[in-house]
Amino acid sequence: MSRIYLDPKDMPKSWYNIMADLPFKMDPYINPATMKPLQPDDMSAIFPPALIEQEISVKREIAIPTDVLDMLSLWRPTPLLRARNLEKALGTPAKIFYKYEGTAPAGSHKANTAVAQVYYNKIAGIKQLTTETGAGQWGSSVAYAAKHFGLGCTIYMVKVSFTQKPYRSSFMRMFGANVIPSPSNTTQAGRDVLAVDPDTPGSLGTAIGEAVEAAIQNKDTNYTLGSVLNHVLLHQTVIGLEAQKQMESVGEYPDTVIACAGGGSNFGGIAFPFLRDKINGKELRAIAVEPASCPTLTKGKYTYDYGDTASLTPIMKMYTLGKDFTPPAIHAGGLRFHGMSPAVSALMKNGLIEAEIAHQSDIFKYGMMFAHTEGIVPAPESCHAISSVCRKALECIEKGKTETILFNLSGNGFFDFPAYDAYVDGKLTDYEYSEEDVAKSMANLPKVNK
Amino acid sequence: MSRIYLDPKDMPKSWYNIMADLPFKMDPYINPATMKPLQPDDMSAIFPPALIEQEISVKREIAIPTDVLDMLSLWRPTPLLRARNLEKALGTPAKIFYKYEGTAPAGSHKANTAVAQVYYNKIAGIKQLTTETGAGQWGSSVAYAAKHFGLGCTIYMVKVSFTQKPYRSSFMRMFGANVIPSPSNTTQAGRDVLAVDPDTPGSLGTAIGEAVEAAIQNKDTNYTLGSVLNHVLLHQTVIGLEAQKQMESVGEYPDTVIACAGGGSNFGGIAFPFLRDKINGKELRAIAVEPASCPTLTKGKYTYDYGDTASLTPIMKMYTLGKDFTPPAIHAGGLRFHGMSPAVSALMKNGLIEAEIAHQSDIFKYGMMFAHTEGIVPAPESCHAISSVCRKALECIEKGKTETILFNLSGNGFFDFPAYDAYVDGKLTDYEYSEEDVAKSMANLPKVNK
Repeated sequence: MSRIYLDPKDMPKSWYNIMADLPFKMDPYINPATMKPLQPDDMSAIFPPALIEQEISVKREIAIPTDVLDMLSLWRPTPLLRARNLEKALGTPAKIFYKYEGTAPAGSHKANTAVAQVYYNKIAGIKQLTTETGAGQWGSSVAYAAKHFGLGCTIYMVKVSFTQKPYRSSFMRMFGANVIPSPSNTTQAGRDVLAVDPDTPGSLGTAIGEAVEAAIQNKDTNYTLGSVLNHVLLHQTVIGLEAQKQMESVGEYPDTVIACAGGGSNFGGIAFPFLRDKINGKELRAIAVEPASCPTLTKGKYTYDYGDTASLTPIMKMYTLGKDFTPPAIHAGGLRFHGMSPAVSALMKNGLIEAEIAHQSDIFKYGMMFAHTEGIVPAPESCHAISSVCRKALECIEKGKTETILFNLSGNGFFDFPAYDAYVDGKLTDYEYSEEDVAKSMANLPKVNK
Repeated sequence: MSRIYLDPKDMPKSWYNIMADLPFKMDPYINPATMKPLQPDDMSAIFPPALIEQEISVKREIAIPTDVLDMLSLWRPTPLLRARNLEKALGTPAKIFYKYEGTAPAGSHKANTAVAQVYYNKIAGIKQLTTETGAGQWGSSVAYAAKHFGLGCTIYMVKVSFTQKPYRSSFMRMFGANVIPSPSNTTQAGRDVLAVDPDTPGSLGTAIGEAVEAAIQNKDTNYTLGSVLNHVLLHQTVIGLEAQKQMESVGEYPDTVIACAGGGSNFGGIAFPFLRDKINGKELRAIAVEPASCPTLTKGKYTYDYGDTASLTPIMKMYTLGKDFTPPAIHAGGLRFHGMSPAVSALMKNGLIEAEIAHQSDIFKYGMMFAHTEGIVPAPESCHAISSVCRKALECIEKGKTETILFNLSGNGFFDFPAYDAYVDGKLTDYEYSEEDVAKSMANLPKVNK
């Protein structure tokens, strides 16, 4: 059997907080107004108390509220599969396992944190939410959760993805969300970017700025973020916690854990519970895979920067290409972010994880191979992980060694057929990041004295 | 917990053949060339020996080959869920359970028989397959299975669905299939229909004719059908067999089993194992739901008719609206078939099952409600079942009684956002079938003396 289930009664009842186990100190967030370390209260204009508490918590286990567990149980535990057909097609001695998050509402792991975030906003009395979305996986998940809990929501969708993925805005609209292509004229943050380049494809950094601005202006409105922050990655650890139990049930433990990384949430979600073992002495490689066109961890600088183009978010110590960096219009819209989760960045800086890049043509090549063998069309974001897995599995043949690889198949690609069409028709372009653009965007780093 | 898993080791190892238990005699198929009862050999031009044997078998249990089981185990057992959020939204005392087939490759139950059919063709030495597809769920599933087993395939896709669901042809192309909008100029069957009406939206009956014609002409090419025939419904019984075990594991048994019906395969798949219990004395209602625009079971005639417009298929005793009936261009393309599975038809004729119609506006209304509450966007076909379930659950409130309802959520609607857009924008039209059209198409019934 390829499929390794977990009994629903064995679903994790708590999230795992890696902050409790880090063998180094995290640098504080900086308040962009005062340029001093951010205080919990500084976040209260956009986040509810429970999420602020989780953002700064160092408690190892944080209980999942019953109402959230109930919703998660609609699609969790998700299956773990041994990719036997892919192994066979590659001819590799490696054992490849994948955790499949694509059966969640809206088709990706993003629902794991969307339901938690909307729940905490609901119990704090918030009526409206704003957010950004790249590929649309996050926006769709927020729309679903907001509909369930009876909140309204406005979603700033990066313009290039809005055009590339029309079914995504249909999904959000179907769930009652107000979807606005970003940059838009509805915010100062959007107008400022349009003034410089009216034809910009947009970026996650710009859309975040628009959503934060809209949230700050209304007392009953909060902002939700789909990645980057500690509390978001915390909610995603159900992925790795389940995978640990499932691997154990078949007597396996990964040598290597692989996931794509845009803001870091699906990588953190699967890797953090395993990194706890690594911190405690277990041998393990954890690899984040990012697009060649937006190589934050591999080519960025580890320094303080804003999370958004409009400089409204807290300033965070992270790998960054500069807040003004606009990545090329690749199809993996979820990975077009100039920065990276501070936690993932610090793990990288301290040598606990590794990072790799993948080219667009390569990720679709291996994504197609995965679809043909395993029967699941992967999201372009997840294809980054798949391409790295396949490269490692092929190395195993050359080197005549075996290896157990676990990766996070973070979402399905049912919304991404225009991208697959472009690949099949040979119309897909590879993009490199532009050193000149990065040099420019790096010139605008905030000056933090700490 | 809403989710009721089945341990992969408890997956059914055999299909259930209802032919062993029918309390009445089935009428034989008729050979359209000789107008005499069809002999097994008559089918050998388009089907492999194993499928012909299954088509006429009266053996109760037919073992699933290991290679097929291996593939099924990529997505099976599928989850059974209690629709607690939907129950709450309706305010009903009814207990609603659904079997979710949308996690299969290509997003619907069709893969269950696609892998079996392609496997049997492969071991019979067949190199190429032809088939028709309405909504595209069947064509996508065949493309996936053919790619896996290394066969080529040509898929005649009903023209209106080809236009309504562009991502479906992308899916099939991605899996290496040759997709042709039907009616086409590539076959006599297609040319004949185009000669009468060049602007026809097409129909499953026409596409079947094209695919059969293409298969007959080549010795190494066979035809595969996604519904209607006994062997197809046989392969789908894994759905009901799993559901029985899952219901039993939580101490439940359905009062009513509901599924949509186009050709009858997802209805038969979930209902047949339960109908075995009914034949053996258990109380149970089994309800097939069909579109108001193509009401085969509810308004059709139980008589001998062709399965296709071109009169190439065997003549079958079934409920039919006449082979030349072209249903209106509704979004549930999988239900636009003039006929109905002979087995399902005979069960209807003999009072063992019931049938209902649903209007397009109603099915999207309840489909949206289902998505909002259960987090799964249902395929328009499955929305027919959902609308019937909701009506029954609302009746329970009026009548102050409880009821346990099980339905088959046969596929997801990730390919159907243009339809949901039309509903959200108030642009969806309801269609009735045309009595005049049916009278015309009924005039062409074959004359069978038996």
